[in-house]
Amino acid sequence: MSSFLADFSKIKDLKILVHGGGKRATEMAKELGISSKMIEGRRVTDAATLEIVTMVYAGLLNKNIAATLHKHHCDAIGLSGADANTILAHKRHVKNIDYGFAGDVDAVNTKFIQVLLEQKLTPVFCAITHNGKGQLLNTNADTIAAELGKGLSDNFEVELIYCFEKPGVLTDIENEASVIENINAEIYQKLKKDGTIADGMIPKIDNCFDALQNGVSKVIIGNPEVITGTNMKHTNLVL
Amino acid sequence: MSSFLADFSKIKDLKILVHGGGKRATEMAKELGISSKMIEGRRVTDAATLEIVTMVYAGLLNKNIAATLHKHHCDAIGLSGADANTILAHKRHVKNIDYGFAGDVDAVNTKFIQVLLEQKLTPVFCAITHNGKGQLLNTNADTIAAELGKGLSDNFEVELIYCFEKPGVLTDIENEASVIENINAEIYQKLKKDGTIADGMIPKIDNCFDALQNGVSKVIIGNPEVITGTNMKHTNLVL
Repeated sequence: MSSFLADFSKIKDLKILVHGGGKRATEMAKELGISSKMIEGRRVTDAATLEIVTMVYAGLLNKNIAATLHKHHCDAIGLSGADANTILAHKRHVKNIDYGFAGDVDAVNTKFIQVLLEQKLTPVFCAITHNGKGQLLNTNADTIAAELGKGLSDNFEVELIYCFEKPGVLTDIENEASVIENINAEIYQKLKKDGTIADGMIPKIDNCFDALQNGVSKVIIGNPEVITGTNMKHTNLVL
Repeated sequence: MSSFLADFSKIKDLKILVHGGGKRATEMAKELGISSKMIEGRRVTDAATLEIVTMVYAGLLNKNIAATLHKHHCDAIGLSGADANTILAHKRHVKNIDYGFAGDVDAVNTKFIQVLLEQKLTPVFCAITHNGKGQLLNTNADTIAAELGKGLSDNFEVELIYCFEKPGVLTDIENEASVIENINAEIYQKLKKDGTIADGMIPKIDNCFDALQNGVSKVIIGNPEVITGTNMKHTNLVL
Protein backbone atom coordinates (compact mmCIF):
# COMPACT_ATOMS: atom_id res chain seq x y z
CA MET A 1 0.00 0.00 0.00
CA SER A 2 2.72 2.43 1.03
CA SER A 3 4.73 1.89 -2.18
CA PHE A 4 1.53 2.22 -4.20
CA LEU A 5 0.87 5.62 -2.62
CA ALA A 6 4.45 6.71 -3.30
CA ASP A 7 3.99 5.72 -6.97
CA PHE A 8 0.56 7.33 -7.11
CA SER A 9 1.87 10.63 -5.75
CA LYS A 10 4.33 10.79 -8.67
CA ILE A 11 1.57 10.89 -11.31
CA LYS A 12 1.88 14.37 -12.79
CA ASP A 13 -1.62 14.72 -14.27
CA LEU A 14 -4.62 15.72 -12.18
CA LYS A 15 -5.68 12.59 -10.37
CA ILE A 16 -8.29 11.07 -8.08
CA LEU A 17 -7.93 7.98 -5.90
CA VAL A 18 -10.87 5.72 -5.03
CA HIS A 19 -10.43 3.03 -2.41
CA GLY A 20 -12.44 0.36 -0.67
CA GLY A 21 -11.13 -1.54 2.32
CA GLY A 22 -13.15 -4.73 2.49
CA LYS A 23 -10.43 -6.86 4.04
CA ARG A 24 -9.80 -4.42 6.91
CA ALA A 25 -13.57 -4.04 7.44
CA THR A 26 -13.96 -7.82 7.66
CA GLU A 27 -11.14 -7.96 10.24
CA MET A 28 -12.73 -5.15 12.25
CA ALA A 29 -16.14 -6.84 12.13
CA LYS A 30 -14.52 -10.01 13.46
CA GLU A 31 -12.83 -8.10 16.30
CA LEU A 32 -16.23 -6.63 17.21
CA GLY A 33 -17.93 -10.02 16.98
CA ILE A 34 -20.08 -9.06 14.01
CA SER A 35 -20.34 -11.57 11.16
CA SER A 36 -19.70 -10.38 7.58
CA LYS A 37 -22.22 -11.65 5.06
CA MET A 38 -21.27 -11.65 1.38
CA ILE A 39 -23.56 -12.50 -1.56
CA GLU A 40 -21.99 -12.85 -5.03
CA GLY A 41 -18.86 -11.09 -3.79
CA ARG A 42 -20.78 -8.09 -2.46
CA ARG A 43 -21.12 -7.23 1.21
CA VAL A 44 -24.55 -7.24 2.82
CA THR A 45 -24.61 -4.00 4.81
CA ASP A 46 -26.80 -4.20 7.90
CA ALA A 47 -26.77 -1.30 10.39
CA ALA A 48 -23.82 -2.67 12.40
CA THR A 49 -21.83 -3.34 9.23
CA LEU A 50 -22.54 0.17 7.94
CA GLU A 51 -21.00 1.57 11.15
CA ILE A 52 -17.93 -0.58 10.61
CA VAL A 53 -17.38 0.31 6.96
CA THR A 54 -17.95 3.99 7.76
CA MET A 55 -15.29 3.81 10.49
CA VAL A 56 -12.82 1.78 8.47
CA TYR A 57 -13.24 3.28 4.98
CA ALA A 58 -14.01 6.95 5.78
CA GLY A 59 -11.96 7.12 8.99
CA LEU A 60 -9.05 4.74 9.39
CA LEU A 61 -8.13 4.15 5.75
CA ASN A 62 -9.17 7.43 4.12
CA LYS A 63 -7.32 9.61 6.66
CA ASN A 64 -4.19 7.45 6.72
CA ILE A 65 -4.10 7.52 2.91
CA ALA A 66 -4.48 11.32 2.94
CA ALA A 67 -1.71 11.71 5.54
CA THR A 68 0.62 9.34 3.64
CA LEU A 69 0.04 11.16 0.34
CA HIS A 70 0.96 14.47 2.03
CA LYS A 71 4.20 12.83 3.18
CA HIS A 72 4.87 12.23 -0.53
CA HIS A 73 4.04 15.89 -1.34
CA CYS A 74 0.71 15.03 -2.91
CA ASP A 75 -1.91 17.50 -1.66
CA ALA A 76 -4.67 15.00 -0.89
CA ILE A 77 -8.17 15.62 0.42
CA GLY A 78 -10.06 12.60 1.75
CA LEU A 79 -13.78 12.56 1.05
CA SER A 80 -16.89 10.47 1.34
CA GLY A 81 -19.86 11.03 -0.93
CA ALA A 82 -21.60 12.87 1.92
CA ASP A 83 -18.91 15.57 1.89
CA ALA A 84 -20.05 18.55 -0.19
CA ASN A 85 -22.65 16.15 -1.58
CA THR A 86 -19.97 14.78 -3.90
CA ILE A 87 -21.73 11.44 -4.49
CA LEU A 88 -25.47 11.15 -4.04
CA ALA A 89 -26.92 7.65 -4.01
CA HIS A 90 -30.08 5.75 -3.10
CA LYS A 91 -30.49 2.60 -1.06
CA ARG A 92 -30.50 -0.34 -3.45
CA HIS A 93 -34.00 -1.59 -4.12
CA VAL A 94 -34.66 -5.09 -2.87
CA LYS A 95 -35.29 -7.52 -5.69
CA ASN A 96 -34.18 -11.06 -4.88
CA ILE A 97 -31.43 -10.04 -2.47
CA ASP A 98 -31.59 -7.42 0.30
CA TYR A 99 -28.13 -5.82 0.38
CA GLY A 100 -29.18 -3.54 3.26
CA PHE A 101 -27.51 -0.11 3.30
CA ALA A 102 -25.90 -0.55 -0.11
CA GLY A 103 -26.02 2.56 -2.26
CA ASP A 104 -26.41 2.89 -6.02
CA VAL A 105 -25.07 6.17 -7.39
CA ASP A 106 -27.51 8.84 -8.64
CA ALA A 107 -25.28 11.89 -9.17
CA VAL A 108 -21.72 13.12 -8.90
CA ASN A 109 -21.01 16.74 -7.89
CA THR A 110 -18.47 17.32 -10.66
CA LYS A 111 -18.66 21.08 -10.18
CA PHE A 112 -17.15 20.91 -6.71
CA ILE A 113 -14.65 18.18 -7.63
CA GLN A 114 -13.47 20.49 -10.40
CA VAL A 115 -12.99 23.29 -7.81
CA LEU A 116 -10.73 20.92 -5.87
CA LEU A 117 -8.77 19.92 -8.98
CA GLU A 118 -8.32 23.61 -9.87
CA GLN A 119 -6.74 24.02 -6.41
CA LYS A 120 -4.27 21.27 -7.45
CA LEU A 121 -5.76 18.99 -4.82
CA THR A 122 -6.00 15.22 -5.19
CA PRO A 123 -9.41 13.97 -4.04
CA VAL A 124 -9.33 10.58 -2.29
CA PHE A 125 -12.75 8.94 -2.20
CA CYS A 126 -13.75 6.15 0.10
CA ALA A 127 -16.62 3.86 -0.80
CA ILE A 128 -19.21 5.62 1.39
CA THR A 129 -21.98 7.75 -0.12
CA HIS A 130 -25.20 9.30 1.21
CA ASN A 131 -28.80 9.69 0.10
CA GLY A 132 -29.20 13.40 0.92
CA LYS A 133 -31.70 12.52 3.67
CA GLY A 134 -29.20 11.75 6.40
CA GLN A 135 -28.46 8.15 5.50
CA LEU A 136 -24.93 6.97 4.73
CA LEU A 137 -24.63 4.12 2.22
CA ASN A 138 -21.96 1.57 1.35
CA THR A 139 -21.15 1.80 -2.36
CA ASN A 140 -18.91 -0.35 -4.51
CA ALA A 141 -15.57 1.42 -5.09
CA ASP A 142 -15.31 0.28 -8.74
CA THR A 143 -18.70 1.84 -9.42
CA ILE A 144 -17.68 5.10 -7.74
CA ALA A 145 -14.57 5.27 -9.91
CA ALA A 146 -16.64 4.70 -13.06
CA GLU A 147 -19.24 7.30 -12.04
CA LEU A 148 -16.56 9.89 -11.24
CA GLY A 149 -14.88 9.17 -14.57
CA LYS A 150 -18.13 9.50 -16.50
CA GLY A 151 -19.06 12.71 -14.71
CA LEU A 152 -15.69 14.35 -15.22
CA SER A 153 -15.34 13.30 -18.86
CA ASP A 154 -17.40 16.32 -19.96
CA ASN A 155 -14.50 18.59 -19.01
CA PHE A 156 -11.47 16.33 -18.85
CA GLU A 157 -9.90 13.52 -20.80
CA VAL A 158 -10.35 10.74 -18.27
CA GLU A 159 -8.29 7.56 -17.96
CA LEU A 160 -9.53 4.96 -15.49
CA ILE A 161 -7.09 2.49 -13.95
CA TYR A 162 -8.50 -0.37 -11.89
CA CYS A 163 -5.87 -1.92 -9.65
CA PHE A 164 -6.29 -5.28 -7.97
CA GLU A 165 -4.18 -8.27 -6.95
CA LYS A 166 -3.85 -9.71 -10.49
CA PRO A 167 -1.92 -8.25 -13.44
CA GLY A 168 -5.09 -8.00 -15.52
CA VAL A 169 -7.96 -10.14 -16.74
CA LEU A 170 -6.61 -13.71 -17.02
CA THR A 171 -7.70 -16.59 -19.26
CA ASP A 172 -6.42 -18.94 -16.54
CA ILE A 173 -6.87 -17.60 -13.02
CA GLU A 174 -3.96 -19.80 -11.84
CA ASN A 175 -1.55 -18.38 -14.41
CA GLU A 176 -0.54 -14.74 -14.07
CA ALA A 177 1.12 -14.86 -17.48
CA SER A 178 -2.28 -15.43 -19.12
CA VAL A 179 -3.24 -11.74 -19.20
CA ILE A 180 -5.70 -10.84 -21.97
CA GLU A 181 -4.16 -7.68 -23.42
CA ASN A 182 -7.25 -6.27 -25.12
CA ILE A 183 -10.92 -6.86 -24.49
CA ASN A 184 -13.59 -5.31 -26.66
CA ALA A 185 -17.33 -5.79 -26.34
CA GLU A 186 -17.35 -8.72 -28.77
CA ILE A 187 -14.49 -10.56 -27.04
CA TYR A 188 -16.13 -9.85 -23.67
CA GLN A 189 -19.35 -11.55 -24.74
CA LYS A 190 -17.41 -14.56 -25.98
CA LEU A 191 -15.34 -14.86 -22.79
CA LYS A 192 -18.45 -14.58 -20.64
CA LYS A 193 -20.22 -17.24 -22.69
CA ASP A 194 -17.40 -19.77 -22.43
CA GLY A 195 -16.98 -19.06 -18.69
CA THR A 196 -13.46 -17.56 -18.91
CA ILE A 197 -14.80 -14.36 -17.33
CA ALA A 198 -17.11 -15.07 -14.41
CA ASP A 199 -18.15 -14.10 -10.86
CA GLY A 200 -16.73 -10.83 -9.52
CA MET A 201 -15.00 -9.96 -12.80
CA ILE A 202 -18.35 -9.47 -14.54
CA PRO A 203 -19.52 -6.37 -12.58
CA LYS A 204 -15.94 -5.05 -12.73
CA ILE A 205 -15.82 -5.26 -16.53
CA ASP A 206 -19.42 -4.04 -16.84
CA ASN A 207 -18.29 -0.89 -14.99
CA CYS A 208 -15.42 -0.51 -17.46
CA PHE A 209 -17.64 -0.68 -20.53
CA ASP A 210 -20.20 1.61 -18.90
CA ALA A 211 -17.41 4.16 -18.40
CA LEU A 212 -16.12 3.81 -21.98
CA GLN A 213 -19.61 4.19 -23.39
CA ASN A 214 -20.12 7.37 -21.37
CA GLY A 215 -17.13 9.51 -22.13
CA VAL A 216 -14.11 7.90 -20.45
CA SER A 217 -11.21 7.72 -22.93
CA LYS A 218 -9.26 4.75 -21.65
CA VAL A 219 -9.78 1.94 -19.14
CA ILE A 220 -7.07 -0.34 -17.83
CA ILE A 221 -7.17 -3.27 -15.40
CA GLY A 222 -3.92 -4.31 -13.78
CA ASN A 223 -2.00 -4.68 -10.57
CA PRO A 224 -0.98 -1.60 -8.56
CA GLU A 225 2.39 -1.25 -10.32
CA VAL A 226 0.56 -0.50 -13.57
CA ILE A 227 0.20 3.14 -12.49
CA THR A 228 3.95 3.67 -12.89
CA GLY A 229 3.34 3.23 -16.62
CA THR A 230 6.47 1.16 -17.13
CA ASN A 231 5.16 -1.30 -19.67
CA MET A 232 3.63 -3.56 -17.03
CA LYS A 233 1.39 -6.23 -18.50
CA HIS A 234 -2.25 -5.25 -18.16
CA THR A 235 -5.66 -5.48 -19.81
CA ASN A 236 -6.95 -2.67 -22.03
CA LEU A 237 -10.67 -2.34 -22.35
CA VAL A 238 -11.82 -1.00 -25.71
CA LEU A 239 -15.25 -0.46 -27.24
CA MET B 1 -27.26 15.70 18.77
CA SER B 2 -29.84 15.57 16.00
CA SER B 3 -31.73 18.66 17.28
CA PHE B 4 -28.40 20.47 17.70
CA LEU B 5 -27.58 19.79 14.04
CA ALA B 6 -31.04 21.02 12.99
CA ASP B 7 -30.46 24.23 14.95
CA PHE B 8 -26.90 24.56 13.64
CA SER B 9 -28.06 24.22 10.03
CA LYS B 10 -30.33 27.26 10.53
CA ILE B 11 -27.43 29.63 11.30
CA LYS B 12 -27.41 32.03 8.36
CA ASP B 13 -23.82 33.29 8.62
CA LEU B 14 -20.88 31.34 7.25
CA LYS B 15 -20.15 28.65 9.82
CA ILE B 16 -17.77 25.87 10.79
CA LEU B 17 -18.47 22.97 13.15
CA VAL B 18 -15.75 21.31 15.22
CA HIS B 19 -16.52 18.09 17.07
CA GLY B 20 -14.80 15.55 19.27
CA GLY B 21 -16.39 12.25 20.19
CA GLY B 22 -14.63 11.07 23.33
CA LYS B 23 -17.58 9.18 24.79
CA ARG B 24 -18.20 7.17 21.62
CA ALA B 25 -14.45 6.49 21.31
CA THR B 26 -14.33 5.20 24.90
CA GLU B 27 -17.29 2.89 24.17
CA MET B 28 -15.63 1.62 20.99
CA ALA B 29 -12.34 1.03 22.85
CA LYS B 30 -14.26 -0.99 25.43
CA GLU B 31 -15.96 -3.06 22.71
CA LEU B 32 -12.53 -3.79 21.24
CA GLY B 33 -11.06 -4.62 24.64
CA ILE B 34 -8.66 -1.67 24.66
CA SER B 35 -8.42 0.37 27.86
CA SER B 36 -8.79 4.16 27.68
CA LYS B 37 -6.23 6.06 29.73
CA MET B 38 -6.98 9.67 30.71
CA ILE B 39 -4.60 12.09 32.46
CA GLU B 40 -6.02 15.43 33.68
CA GLY B 41 -9.06 14.95 31.46
CA ARG B 42 -7.00 14.36 28.33
CA ARG B 43 -6.81 11.04 26.52
CA VAL B 44 -3.48 9.24 26.27
CA THR B 45 -3.30 8.22 22.61
CA ASP B 46 -1.31 5.04 22.07
CA ALA B 47 -1.25 3.44 18.58
CA ALA B 48 -4.38 1.34 19.20
CA THR B 49 -6.25 4.35 20.60
CA LEU B 50 -5.22 6.49 17.63
CA GLU B 51 -6.83 3.91 15.32
CA ILE B 52 -10.02 4.06 17.37
CA VAL B 53 -10.29 7.85 17.49
CA THR B 54 -9.51 8.04 13.75
CA MET B 55 -12.31 5.57 13.04
CA VAL B 56 -14.82 7.13 15.41
CA TYR B 57 -14.11 10.86 14.94
CA ALA B 58 -13.11 11.02 11.26
CA GLY B 59 -15.31 8.14 10.10
CA LEU B 60 -18.41 7.32 12.11
CA LEU B 61 -19.20 10.72 13.63
CA ASN B 62 -17.82 13.10 10.99
CA LYS B 63 -19.63 11.40 8.10
CA ASN B 64 -22.91 10.97 9.98
CA ILE B 65 -22.80 14.65 10.96
CA ALA B 66 -22.14 15.63 7.33
CA ALA B 67 -25.01 13.44 6.09
CA THR B 68 -27.40 14.78 8.75
CA LEU B 69 -26.52 18.40 7.94
CA HIS B 70 -27.28 17.74 4.26
CA LYS B 71 -30.67 16.42 5.35
CA HIS B 72 -31.19 19.88 6.90
CA HIS B 73 -30.08 21.57 3.65
CA CYS B 74 -26.73 22.62 5.09
CA ASP B 75 -24.01 21.90 2.52
CA ALA B 76 -21.47 20.29 4.85
CA ILE B 77 -18.02 18.95 4.08
CA GLY B 78 -16.42 16.72 6.72
CA LEU B 79 -12.68 17.11 7.14
CA SER B 80 -9.75 16.04 9.25
CA GLY B 81 -6.63 18.16 9.50
CA ALA B 82 -4.93 15.78 7.05
CA ASP B 83 -7.40 16.77 4.31
CA ALA B 84 -5.94 19.48 2.09
CA ASN B 85 -3.44 19.97 4.93
CA THR B 86 -6.10 22.02 6.73
CA ILE B 87 -4.53 21.55 10.19
CA LEU B 88 -0.86 20.77 10.54
CA ALA B 89 0.33 19.69 13.99
CA HIS B 90 3.29 18.08 15.73
CA LYS B 91 3.36 15.23 18.22
CA ARG B 92 3.28 16.72 21.69
CA HIS B 93 6.73 16.78 23.25
CA VAL B 94 7.06 14.57 26.31
CA LYS B 95 7.69 16.57 29.47
CA ASN B 96 6.26 14.91 32.57
CA ILE B 97 3.47 13.08 30.77
CA ASP B 98 3.65 11.12 27.51
CA TYR B 99 0.32 11.73 25.76
CA GLY B 100 1.37 9.50 22.85
CA PHE B 101 -0.03 10.51 19.46
CA ALA B 102 -1.48 13.80 20.72
CA GLY B 103 -1.02 16.68 18.34
CA ASP B 104 -0.41 20.37 19.07
CA VAL B 105 -1.43 22.66 16.22
CA ASP B 106 1.25 24.42 14.14
CA ALA B 107 -0.71 25.90 11.24
CA VAL B 108 -4.19 26.23 9.78
CA ASN B 109 -4.71 26.32 6.00
CA THR B 110 -7.05 29.31 6.06
CA LYS B 111 -6.61 29.87 2.33
CA PHE B 112 -8.31 26.59 1.46
CA ILE B 113 -10.95 26.90 4.19
CA GLN B 114 -11.81 30.26 2.66
CA VAL B 115 -12.22 28.59 -0.75
CA LEU B 116 -14.75 26.24 0.87
CA LEU B 117 -16.61 29.10 2.56
CA GLU B 118 -16.75 30.97 -0.75
CA GLN B 119 -18.48 27.88 -2.18
CA LYS B 120 -21.07 28.31 0.62
CA LEU B 121 -19.90 25.07 2.16
CA THR B 122 -19.92 24.39 5.91
CA PRO B 123 -16.67 22.69 6.97
CA VAL B 124 -17.09 20.10 9.73
CA PHE B 125 -13.80 19.33 11.46
CA CYS B 126 -13.13 16.28 13.56
CA ALA B 127 -10.37 16.32 16.18
CA ILE B 128 -7.80 14.52 14.02
CA THR B 129 -4.79 16.34 12.55
CA HIS B 130 -1.56 15.23 10.86
CA ASN B 131 2.12 16.14 10.99
CA GLY B 132 2.75 16.35 7.23
CA LYS B 133 5.02 13.30 7.46
CA GLY B 134 2.33 10.65 7.29
CA GLN B 135 1.38 10.58 10.97
CA LEU B 136 -2.17 11.25 12.12
CA LEU B 137 -2.54 12.92 15.53
CA ASN B 138 -5.35 13.25 18.07
CA THR B 139 -5.94 16.93 18.82
CA ASN B 140 -8.21 18.59 21.37
CA ALA B 141 -11.38 19.87 19.64
CA ASP B 142 -11.53 23.08 21.72
CA THR B 143 -7.99 23.91 20.59
CA ILE B 144 -8.87 23.24 16.94
CA ALA B 145 -11.84 25.61 17.22
CA ALA B 146 -9.64 28.34 18.74
CA GLU B 147 -6.92 27.89 16.11
CA LEU B 148 -9.45 28.00 13.25
CA GLY B 149 -11.00 31.12 14.77
CA LYS B 150 -7.63 32.82 15.14
CA GLY B 151 -6.56 31.92 11.62
CA LEU B 152 -9.80 33.08 10.01
CA SER B 153 -10.01 36.34 11.99
CA ASP B 154 -7.68 38.05 9.50
CA ASN B 155 -10.46 37.96 6.90
CA PHE B 156 -13.65 37.41 8.86
CA GLU B 157 -15.31 38.64 12.02
CA VAL B 158 -15.20 35.43 14.03
CA GLU B 159 -17.49 34.42 16.87
CA LEU B 160 -16.58 31.25 18.78
CA ILE B 161 -19.28 29.28 20.58
CA TYR B 162 -18.20 26.43 22.84
CA CYS B 163 -21.05 24.05 23.58
CA PHE B 164 -20.95 21.51 26.37
CA GLU B 165 -23.34 19.87 28.86
CA LYS B 166 -23.56 22.91 31.19
CA PRO B 167 -25.24 26.28 30.50
CA GLY B 168 -21.94 28.13 31.00
CA VAL B 169 -19.16 28.50 33.54
CA LEU B 170 -20.75 27.91 36.95
CA THR B 171 -19.76 29.21 40.40
CA ASP B 172 -21.36 26.07 41.85
CA ILE B 173 -21.01 23.00 39.62
CA GLU B 174 -24.12 21.49 41.27
CA ASN B 175 -26.28 24.52 40.49
CA GLU B 176 -27.06 25.22 36.83
CA ALA B 177 -28.53 28.61 37.79
CA SER B 178 -25.10 29.79 38.96
CA VAL B 179 -23.86 30.77 35.49
CA ILE B 180 -21.20 33.49 35.51
CA GLU B 181 -22.43 35.86 32.80
CA ASN B 182 -19.16 37.65 32.07
CA ILE B 183 -15.57 36.62 32.66
CA ASN B 184 -12.68 38.94 31.91
CA ALA B 185 -8.98 38.22 32.50
CA GLU B 186 -9.07 39.77 35.97
CA ILE B 187 -12.14 37.81 37.11
CA TYR B 188 -10.64 34.65 35.59
CA GLN B 189 -7.47 35.00 37.70
CA LYS B 190 -9.56 35.52 40.82
CA LEU B 191 -11.83 32.52 40.12
CA LYS B 192 -8.83 30.30 39.42
CA LYS B 193 -7.15 31.44 42.63
CA ASP B 194 -10.16 30.69 44.83
CA GLY B 195 -10.74 27.33 43.13
CA THR B 196 -14.10 28.20 41.53
CA ILE B 197 -12.62 27.45 38.12
CA ALA B 198 -10.53 24.27 38.14
CA ASP B 199 -9.61 21.07 36.29
CA GLY B 200 -10.86 20.74 32.70
CA MET B 201 -12.36 24.25 32.65
CA ILE B 202 -8.89 25.82 32.83
CA PRO B 203 -7.59 24.67 29.41
CA LYS B 204 -11.07 25.44 27.98
CA ILE B 205 -10.99 29.03 29.20
CA ASP B 206 -7.31 29.41 28.32
CA ASN B 207 -8.31 28.57 24.73
CA CYS B 208 -11.01 31.25 24.88
CA PHE B 209 -8.63 34.01 26.01
CA ASP B 210 -6.00 32.87 23.51
CA ALA B 211 -8.64 33.27 20.76
CA LEU B 212 -9.76 36.70 22.01
CA GLN B 213 -6.17 37.93 22.23
CA ASN B 214 -5.54 36.80 18.65
CA GLY B 215 -8.34 38.34 16.64
CA VAL B 216 -11.53 36.49 17.56
CA SER B 217 -14.31 39.03 18.25
CA LYS B 218 -16.54 37.13 20.64
CA VAL B 219 -16.35 33.92 22.68
CA ILE B 220 -19.31 32.24 24.36
CA ILE B 221 -19.53 29.12 26.52
CA GLY B 222 -22.94 27.51 26.91
CA ASN B 223 -25.05 24.46 26.27
CA PRO B 224 -25.95 23.43 22.70
CA GLU B 225 -29.18 25.46 22.67
CA VAL B 226 -27.12 28.66 22.92
CA ILE B 227 -26.57 28.58 19.16
CA THR B 228 -30.24 29.36 18.56
CA GLY B 229 -29.48 32.79 20.07
CA THR B 230 -32.74 32.92 22.02
CA ASN B 231 -31.46 34.61 25.16
CA MET B 232 -30.24 31.36 26.67
CA LYS B 233 -28.11 31.90 29.76
CA HIS B 234 -24.43 31.56 28.91
CA THR B 235 -20.97 32.86 29.77
CA ASN B 236 -19.36 35.66 27.75
CA LEU B 237 -15.59 35.77 27.73
CA VAL B 238 -14.18 39.29 27.40
CA LEU B 239 -10.65 40.64 27.50
